[in-house]
Amino acid sequence: MKYHIEFEPVGRRGECSSEQTLLQAARSLGVDIVNICGGITKCGKCKVKIIEGKVSDPEDNEKKLLTEKELNSGYRLACSTFPLTDCKISVPPESLSTPQRTQTEGRAIDIVPEPVVRNYHPEMTVPTLEDLTSDVDRIYEAMKSQFKVKVHSIDVEAIRELSPVMRENDFKINILLRENEIISVKSTGSPKIGLAVDIGTTKIAGYLVDMESGETLASRGVMNPQISIGEDLITRIMFVIHKNENAAIMQNLIVDEINKIIHEMCSEINAQPSDIEEAVLVANTCIHHLFLRLPVGQLGRAPYIPAISTLVNVKARDIGLNISPGAYIHTLPNIAGFVGADHVAMLLATGMYEEANTVLSLDIGTNTEICLKSGGKMTSVSSPSGPAFEGAHIKYGMRAADGAIERVRIEGDDVEYHTIGHKAPIGICGSGVLDAVSEFYKAGILDSGGRFTAHNRLRTDSEGMVEFLLTNADSGSNIPEITITQKDVRQLQLAKGAISTAIHLLMKKHEITEKEIDKIIIAGAFGTYIDVKSAITIGMLPDIPVERVEQVGNAAGMGAKLALISGAKRKQAESIARKTDYLELATDPDFMKVFINSSNFGWNNKNIKK
Amino acid sequence: MKYHIEFEPVGRRGECSSEQTLLQAARSLGVDIVNICGGITKCGKCKVKIIEGKVSDPEDNEKKLLTEKELNSGYRLACSTFPLTDCKISVPPESLSTPQRTQTEGRAIDIVPEPVVRNYHPEMTVPTLEDLTSDVDRIYEAMKSQFKVKVHSIDVEAIRELSPVMRENDFKINILLRENEIISVKSTGSPKIGLAVDIGTTKIAGYLVDMESGETLASRGVMNPQISIGEDLITRIMFVIHKNENAAIMQNLIVDEINKIIHEMCSEINAQPSDIEEAVLVANTCIHHLFLRLPVGQLGRAPYIPAISTLVNVKARDIGLNISPGAYIHTLPNIAGFVGADHVAMLLATGMYEEANTVLSLDIGTNTEICLKSGGKMTSVSSPSGPAFEGAHIKYGMRAADGAIERVRIEGDDVEYHTIGHKAPIGICGSGVLDAVSEFYKAGILDSGGRFTAHNRLRTDSEGMVEFLLTNADSGSNIPEITITQKDVRQLQLAKGAISTAIHLLMKKHEITEKEIDKIIIAGAFGTYIDVKSAITIGMLPDIPVERVEQVGNAAGMGAKLALISGAKRKQAESIARKTDYLELATDPDFMKVFINSSNFGWNNKNIKK
Repeated sequence: MKYHIEFEPVGRRGECSSEQTLLQAARSLGVDIVNICGGITKCGKCKVKIIEGKVSDPEDNEKKLLTEKELNSGYRLACSTFPLTDCKISVPPESLSTPQRTQTEGRAIDIVPEPVVRNYHPEMTVPTLEDLTSDVDRIYEAMKSQFKVKVHSIDVEAIRELSPVMRENDFKINILLRENEIISVKSTGSPKIGLAVDIGTTKIAGYLVDMESGETLASRGVMNPQISIGEDLITRIMFVIHKNENAAIMQNLIVDEINKIIHEMCSEINAQPSDIEEAVLVANTCIHHLFLRLPVGQLGRAPYIPAISTLVNVKARDIGLNISPGAYIHTLPNIAGFVGADHVAMLLATGMYEEANTVLSLDIGTNTEICLKSGGKMTSVSSPSGPAFEGAHIKYGMRAADGAIERVRIEGDDVEYHTIGHKAPIGICGSGVLDAVSEFYKAGILDSGGRFTAHNRLRTDSEGMVEFLLTNADSGSNIPEITITQKDVRQLQLAKGAISTAIHLLMKKHEITEKEIDKIIIAGAFGTYIDVKSAITIGMLPDIPVERVEQVGNAAGMGAKLALISGAKRKQAESIARKTDYLELATDPDFMKVFINSSNFGWNNKNIKK
Repeated sequence: MKYHIEFEPVGRRGECSSEQTLLQAARSLGVDIVNICGGITKCGKCKVKIIEGKVSDPEDNEKKLLTEKELNSGYRLACSTFPLTDCKISVPPESLSTPQRTQTEGRAIDIVPEPVVRNYHPEMTVPTLEDLTSDVDRIYEAMKSQFKVKVHSIDVEAIRELSPVMRENDFKINILLRENEIISVKSTGSPKIGLAVDIGTTKIAGYLVDMESGETLASRGVMNPQISIGEDLITRIMFVIHKNENAAIMQNLIVDEINKIIHEMCSEINAQPSDIEEAVLVANTCIHHLFLRLPVGQLGRAPYIPAISTLVNVKARDIGLNISPGAYIHTLPNIAGFVGADHVAMLLATGMYEEANTVLSLDIGTNTEICLKSGGKMTSVSSPSGPAFEGAHIKYGMRAADGAIERVRIEGDDVEYHTIGHKAPIGICGSGVLDAVSEFYKAGILDSGGRFTAHNRLRTDSEGMVEFLLTNADSGSNIPEITITQKDVRQLQLAKGAISTAIHLLMKKHEITEKEIDKIIIAGAFGTYIDVKSAITIGMLPDIPVERVEQVGNAAGMGAKLALISGAKRKQAESIARKTDYLELATDPDFMKVFINSSNFGWNNKNIKK
């Protein structure tokens, strides 16, 4: 059965199946509705209003996630609602996924590209009955005599291209050599594009890069669709262990999504996916394994052993990545079960491995990887900080998109806030929550244990939960009520506690105090936008002068780009992975004590024995 | 619509679709009916008799290929007949494909195996929270410390196997190293099997070999199913050029067939296809390219350039060959467009490249490759001898199976013959035709131009064709009439002429006469069974003493086996391919003159200028 569905105010309309939810219908029509949970009916973010037509009755999750007033006004969750007739649907601004704020790139690429895939244009003569040399041998001989390059092998896909390409171009062709293997044969003048991908637990960042100039040609940030299986890594591992076939499902989810952004980015720059001659991928160890479809069972239980930690070079076709048929995917090395190639990429991009000073670096995300360098030694840990910084599990949480509150200041009874894009507020993103909680704590509205004390703006909601009213609803300016609940505070406390514990245990291992830290580097999209002072106030970061803290943007993505355009950077990445120690938090005898203490607000290291 | 079809005397019965021919129905029930043409309704070999039930009316090809008497008695061609009701079908013995005579292997493998895939059983400790080394690094370290082997890489499929295999076997495992790449990880005690395949234009020979002992564990000979597209190579090339997708069809035909015999051979020795850790493939250049799905357009027109002539190492999964997921297929090098890896394999197996004497070697088949060595120089040619030796295009021709006449002697009016398996004659195979024609020529029944003269057994058939009655029909002993027609003689003359021309031009190039030839080596299934004297009598071979002729069986298959178990033999094969000159017959100015002369019977070199 097909119905005609119209989405307002975007004005997209079309035929949709009665078996599709409104969310699926919206997707199929290209209307991008927010759904942090990946459409598994848990996050309550995909609110839409039914304007005309009949739809299925509200489900239990909708009754829980929507207020009675919303339900009575025709609001529903798109993920849980099926059309019963033709419909007209209004998508409120907060449900419309605006492009996420682009992750800044911190540092410009200032290295000389020396890509592992190199271009050659040999001169070749045309075969005759007197010169019967095969096409491949003709190339090998030209490469040897003209460039002193001894080719060792040629990919079967390159052989498949070569005879017609040679003849269509009068034997003037473009040879792409990777180390000593010919991976592709093109007509002269073809572009030479590389793909860098940083796959996070929650987000994927992809970049097309000109491998000869180092220039970024296009970029895309999308959600990691594995979220639909589970927000955290352990749930995804359990899913894969459960049934053999699930490994392929998990892999395909992410490969399909990357193929989609490859297609989009290529369209944007007028190139073909087959023009992409190399890909570099960074991710945490678990995502890295899921992407390559490597075993993850042993990653999910102590002692959390990776199948492989050294770099991997694998033909893109063996993974199903739709780039040049002879191209490789290169993954940077992993360090341990929960400190992966993305962390190595960050250490590479920040230049931390070359630092002589004492430096602490953090890549803040659903999992936060932290590295401390002092006395020439580097130690890394992974900390399960959770998805609160992505706006998940926060009552009015949203991604860092237009209309998100990202800064909060409290003066007496007044609240000042700042939204992304200077739009009317529709929710609050991670840096906004951090700011708010820091202001509450500074003003004494929260005690150091994280409990609300007293304030004119505190109130109790219908379920008895205390919450702080950030915005006053104003239907004239289209401003809704936005609050921070006691539960939201607890979510942030957990994240703060996880990060702060890891830093304390690193300092203990290196036998230093925060006074000795010369610099803190904060990477990651979230880390780029936080107010460092707020992070220090609540004690998520050590109490050092703010000017010593550097926010560098998506350093993991930057590291992937560096490895894409430089063989030397790949060697450095190997060396970083080999030389960085890994600290397993769970086995530290002080872990529990430190964690309990670190969950309190404020930087507190009185409990650390030296 | 389904009908119940019963095949007698084999007694197989079952449900078949009304849209299947009787040939397809027979196949689906496992009844193997002879069909030289591959079921394209041309060879007329798939005769069956309808005993009960109704079938479709006779097609034009059946009216042409079956006698009126046969049609009236209920004989039909299985390839052209559809059932209209339930049927009982009798398959006469000559239509039942008995196992083809196994190709002898000439020489036993007498080399010390030194396979490129080697087995290691390192000792490894179990990971703990104090020893977090990844699974791959654990193996790398053990290989280095225990065997002084530096592993360079590990196939992604091997990484996929390894973590569970290590844990299920207490970290006691079997590592398969190919050069410096780990291609597979197995539980200890797994067998180490290799696959050698010789793909001919008409036939495929496959062997499973124990790579450590060199022992042949199983073997299979089947028809090359590409015959259904075209008997000769040029037709197959045209088919592929015609439409891009056809390259995959052509490849799949042969890959599916090889996968089938892999499955059969593995069942026979109680192994799994995934136990096969390496494959070596030899074929002529065109079949080699079709198998690897390489471009063939340039092979089909002057100057007939191969896409590649050096050896190829390609992952079996890139071809679709169902063996160990990390295994390679190695193809021996080609020499030229029509002198391929199978010829190199023959030169390797016969040891010809080490010969100090003057030696001529021939691998007789649909294409006959010939090599002359004299004065330390080797020159090879390819000669399109056609499928007559396989029994195709011969009125009563059949493959060399039970009941085929393989020897003929004529004494006055009497004919003596000998059949394979001492069965009642049902047809005549290539060596029988050669013998018969040689006897005709010796007895003056054929003149040197190949025209029948006079004999009591000569008669004219209903279409005016002269034929020689080899057998007298005898319904008591179940013996049919079998004849050799003037057209059959012409087919053999063409084959003889092609081979003899090539030998003459090789001798001209090397400036020798047949007197200087110390040895002739004849390889190939057909060459194994021919009467050498007959071949000399008609002038297919130079007139040298019979004792200097050696018949060595399937030398190409043997060469593939040698390359499978020995890296040193692979190096020799490369050196052979590099050092062997190729003579393009078509460009020799004497070609036409020599060819016309060589089509006559008798060895005749009066027309060769030195």
